[in-house]
Amino acid sequence: PDWEILSVSGEEQLRRVFKFRNFAQALAFTNKVGELAEAENHHPAILLEYGKATISWWTHAIGGLHKNDFIMAARTDSAYH
Amino acid sequence: PDWEILSVSGEEQLRRVFKFRNFAQALAFTNKVGELAEAENHHPAILLEYGKATISWWTHAIGGLHKNDFIMAARTDSAYH
Repeated sequence: PDWEILSVSGEEQLRRVFKFRNFAQALAFTNKVGELAEAENHHPAILLEYGKATISWWTHAIGGLHKNDFIMAARTDSAYH
Repeated sequence: PDWEILSVSGEEQLRRVFKFRNFAQALAFTNKVGELAEAENHHPAILLEYGKATISWWTHAIGGLHKNDFIMAARTDSAYH
């Protein structure tokens, strides 16, 4: 429910902001999501800031969203909890 | 020379794009910059993407750039080389 679908340069993306208490925790989450990404060879954009990581999933090859992006979004949620 | 100064929501920021061969290398660099940030308790925004990390330094408390941001930019360059 916390994922938004937005259009970036004409491509739909799934995006969610995850909140943390500090930079270190946001960086730790970035690494967790990085592991998921490497495992599937499918990579998000991650905007890492103090207390926050914004994750965006989309499939550049098809210029938008594929079922796999929704699966990765669900896995990202699991990594957060 | 590769850092740009841009205005984001009325605040000047130093920004540079660092290129890598893949996601894992960009993530490793993100962690290096994260260590620098934690050591100084001064935190950038990092946009991590496949093969690329975009680092932005600024000082929110003063709404723009402080000498320290330029020092952190130089340290970021050193971490890249």
